[in-house]
Amino acid sequence: MLGQIDVNKELGKKEYEKKMEKLEIRFGELQRACKDRGIPVMIVFEGLDASGKGTMINRMIQSLDPRGFKVFTLGREKEDEVMRPYFWRFFTKTPERGRIHIFDQSWYKGVYEKDISEKEVLDFEEMLTEDGMLIVKFFLMISKEEQKKRLDKLEKNSETSWRVTGQDKENNRNYDKCLRKYDRLLVHTDTANAPWTVVEGTDKLYASCKIVSTVVDRMERAIRNADMQAAAKADMASKADTASKAGTAAKAGTAAQAVAPDQAGSPASSEHESDDLMQPDSRGINDLFRNGVLQGVDLSKTIERDEYKKKKKDLQKRLLALQNKMYLKRVPVILAFEGWDAGGKGGAIKRLTQAMDPRGYEVVPVAAPNDIEKAHHYLWRFWEKIPKAGHMTIFDRTWYGRVLVERIEGFAAEDEWSRAYNEINNMEEQFANAGCIVLKFWIHIDKEEQERRFHERENTPEKQWKITEEDWRNRAKWDDYERAVDEMIVRTSTADAPWIVVEGNSKYYARIKVLETVVSALENRLS
Amino acid sequence: MLGQIDVNKELGKKEYEKKMEKLEIRFGELQRACKDRGIPVMIVFEGLDASGKGTMINRMIQSLDPRGFKVFTLGREKEDEVMRPYFWRFFTKTPERGRIHIFDQSWYKGVYEKDISEKEVLDFEEMLTEDGMLIVKFFLMISKEEQKKRLDKLEKNSETSWRVTGQDKENNRNYDKCLRKYDRLLVHTDTANAPWTVVEGTDKLYASCKIVSTVVDRMERAIRNADMQAAAKADMASKADTASKAGTAAKAGTAAQAVAPDQAGSPASSEHESDDLMQPDSRGINDLFRNGVLQGVDLSKTIERDEYKKKKKDLQKRLLALQNKMYLKRVPVILAFEGWDAGGKGGAIKRLTQAMDPRGYEVVPVAAPNDIEKAHHYLWRFWEKIPKAGHMTIFDRTWYGRVLVERIEGFAAEDEWSRAYNEINNMEEQFANAGCIVLKFWIHIDKEEQERRFHERENTPEKQWKITEEDWRNRAKWDDYERAVDEMIVRTSTADAPWIVVEGNSKYYARIKVLETVVSALENRLS
Repeated sequence: MLGQIDVNKELGKKEYEKKMEKLEIRFGELQRACKDRGIPVMIVFEGLDASGKGTMINRMIQSLDPRGFKVFTLGREKEDEVMRPYFWRFFTKTPERGRIHIFDQSWYKGVYEKDISEKEVLDFEEMLTEDGMLIVKFFLMISKEEQKKRLDKLEKNSETSWRVTGQDKENNRNYDKCLRKYDRLLVHTDTANAPWTVVEGTDKLYASCKIVSTVVDRMERAIRNADMQAAAKADMASKADTASKAGTAAKAGTAAQAVAPDQAGSPASSEHESDDLMQPDSRGINDLFRNGVLQGVDLSKTIERDEYKKKKKDLQKRLLALQNKMYLKRVPVILAFEGWDAGGKGGAIKRLTQAMDPRGYEVVPVAAPNDIEKAHHYLWRFWEKIPKAGHMTIFDRTWYGRVLVERIEGFAAEDEWSRAYNEINNMEEQFANAGCIVLKFWIHIDKEEQERRFHERENTPEKQWKITEEDWRNRAKWDDYERAVDEMIVRTSTADAPWIVVEGNSKYYARIKVLETVVSALENRLS
Repeated sequence: MLGQIDVNKELGKKEYEKKMEKLEIRFGELQRACKDRGIPVMIVFEGLDASGKGTMINRMIQSLDPRGFKVFTLGREKEDEVMRPYFWRFFTKTPERGRIHIFDQSWYKGVYEKDISEKEVLDFEEMLTEDGMLIVKFFLMISKEEQKKRLDKLEKNSETSWRVTGQDKENNRNYDKCLRKYDRLLVHTDTANAPWTVVEGTDKLYASCKIVSTVVDRMERAIRNADMQAAAKADMASKADTASKAGTAAKAGTAAQAVAPDQAGSPASSEHESDDLMQPDSRGINDLFRNGVLQGVDLSKTIERDEYKKKKKDLQKRLLALQNKMYLKRVPVILAFEGWDAGGKGGAIKRLTQAMDPRGYEVVPVAAPNDIEKAHHYLWRFWEKIPKAGHMTIFDRTWYGRVLVERIEGFAAEDEWSRAYNEINNMEEQFANAGCIVLKFWIHIDKEEQERRFHERENTPEKQWKITEEDWRNRAKWDDYERAVDEMIVRTSTADAPWIVVEGNSKYYARIKVLETVVSALENRLS
């Protein structure tokens, strides 16, 4: 999850400050709404040393009613904590319904510093979320250089120098190793009910904006769910009531006075009806803050035709040799392609396969599932197609349809697509653990380039079959898709199965980047 | 989970055969009902060597329509399986919606023979159950002696001798160690959605009766859930429909023709309305088969007054010495007491504490939760009370209220109490991992003895406060409670935190057994 994170590209300081102001008002409102509904909230901050957890927490709590929250800073274990089971210090600090508890480091510390297992952490969180707790988890990132700079600064100041330990400096030297360790932990504990949000902490204004916006979003969802559940319960109760009244009346042989459904109402939902906090356009407020991986992609990258031809020839030759090697060494390879319509997936795949031995690879085009596939779990049809050791499978569209088209078009319900990130990460880790090389490409173009290519297809007789009404319909939902792609890339880009965002406005550039990435990954493994 | 299992005490052969007949008819009906509703079913058999998995499966499938099920026997991994990730062989064998797949050994093999983690197994099962799969898991047990007998018999017969390996014999010699290993695995993978059923396999008729009855029960629940969900969905759709029609009509300025809720109906539920399979009294059919831990308890055990006094004195003396030792060695102890009203919990606890140093223990009486406690997770108030290292906490009633009174009285919903077994096992394992001795006592008396004691209380002025209307109300639900106690003991008796069923009709006997159990557990640990 630390491979591809959002970057701050979009806005200037003024704009962030304005957004932050609105977000903070909203945050305060939602605190009251959670209190009214008895929703307990735990907000967890983990992150690299000197990534600014304390500062972020400080900024965050400014907008809250101090009677409703509490901050816990995880210092050294105290004596009464050492003398009890590990989770005692956390369980006893869980908030009452309606309150917010904020943790500057948390139970995750036991995983990387003691022998607490990921399973124990997951069990702990699941137990709480099943009981109605909202858990919001942040991981703060800074670059190796930024971390060094901050540690040096802390050390030079006599008032703060005590905060920098030898371990901190050691961790900075082993930055990459640390990151890999955290990445695994985050991936394994990124569940549908308690997902991680990774935040780039260098720009503090950007970071606190992203943090508050995430909390606001999660609180809104939690409140919506709580209201829906309360309404459903009240509805059931009123139905049962109506039924039993009707039953009694019928028995008594009199005409039952029908209770109009509208009058029966639902007490729980009506209680909050006046509360226009949760009206549909609330989503707009969160849109105040947007950022994403795709915003940071430089689409002007290009390459000349001659260079393209030369590089392609060389790379294809190396790829063929590598294919033989991977067969002999029994290494399986999975290449996954996703991207915008007309982004150039097909062309990139063709340049890969052109030079390979067809007995060693298979291209699997993925369309809507057929009846047999629909009668199974959505991942089943992909498991059916994964390569044997020594073979390669290239998926033209993939299992990520679950969190893209199925999410956007409503083919998968929210609980279905939101647990899919974790299911997919688990699946890809199994592939990797079995020795498989897994590479995932997102071929990226911008909206204008897509329009140009659509028109080109319409105006070129032999390409007309490639463009349908559906393509235009999808295009109309570009922003929704972009949001989904951003979330997908951030939450499923793992050390074992990274996403590679390919700048696709130049087809030549894109094809070479794909070839180069595959060749270099194979060379790394096989040499 | 292998510490306390159901025993076959109740019935004769004839009766089992009659029950089995009815169960099998029901099983066939439910196969069709699952097919109609598109519920996929996986039935998993694990167990000790020679515990009779094959025989059980054979017996089970007799009543099924052969077009709707398939049996998979897990042999050695085949070449195409070795060449792919571990779960490939299982994922590709998951049944289509509406079909039943039966596994003679399963993905669990990878946990005890390869390096597959429990988390991977849990992720796999959760992914499937979340998608609507019904997973029913059996673990077949036989005693060490029975296993030896069966292995010897197989070995002597020239046709079957190949089935007995050196490993099998080795496992029989290390029976206790094997059992402990399996016990942990079962406890860790006994989830609300995919629970284990442990079956004593010595008496094959009893075992297959229990197996089919469990499958029938789980199928009935799955069908009920599916129907409820379909009805809720249809209800929502019809409401949305009504609302949108009303909206359109209102916009058009005409009087909307109201759609009566009854007419709108719910297509999914009405589809199965004629199907009287799932009517309320279906529970009666499963009651055809009952058995349990408590049925096997010998309540005639007793002890003479003189012996009681002598033993008590001696044990209390040893307990005091042990209390000092546990303080010095910093060993925490948790004693949990549950049992029937008037069973004698209080008296047993008093005999424990009489001789101890009050600075080292605390007795925590547990009643209905107060407001603060209600505002937290149900386990929170117990975490608050767990002992520091070197101390002892005695709970007079416990967290097991969740699966007893809260279950029976409906204070906890089915999804809440059914996930509690796993949550409680996790909690107790954390206690044990922190070095804690955990002992749980169920003080058992029979219904007649309870009535005698209730009357005695009513007729003894100084005891009248001990008996209330509620006690009589609880007593009326004896059978429901007994069922819940049986399930509790079987599913939460672990190597780390065993249940001790105490024969309580004789108070003297019960008190001595409690004292002896505590003293011997402390001696074992502290010597």
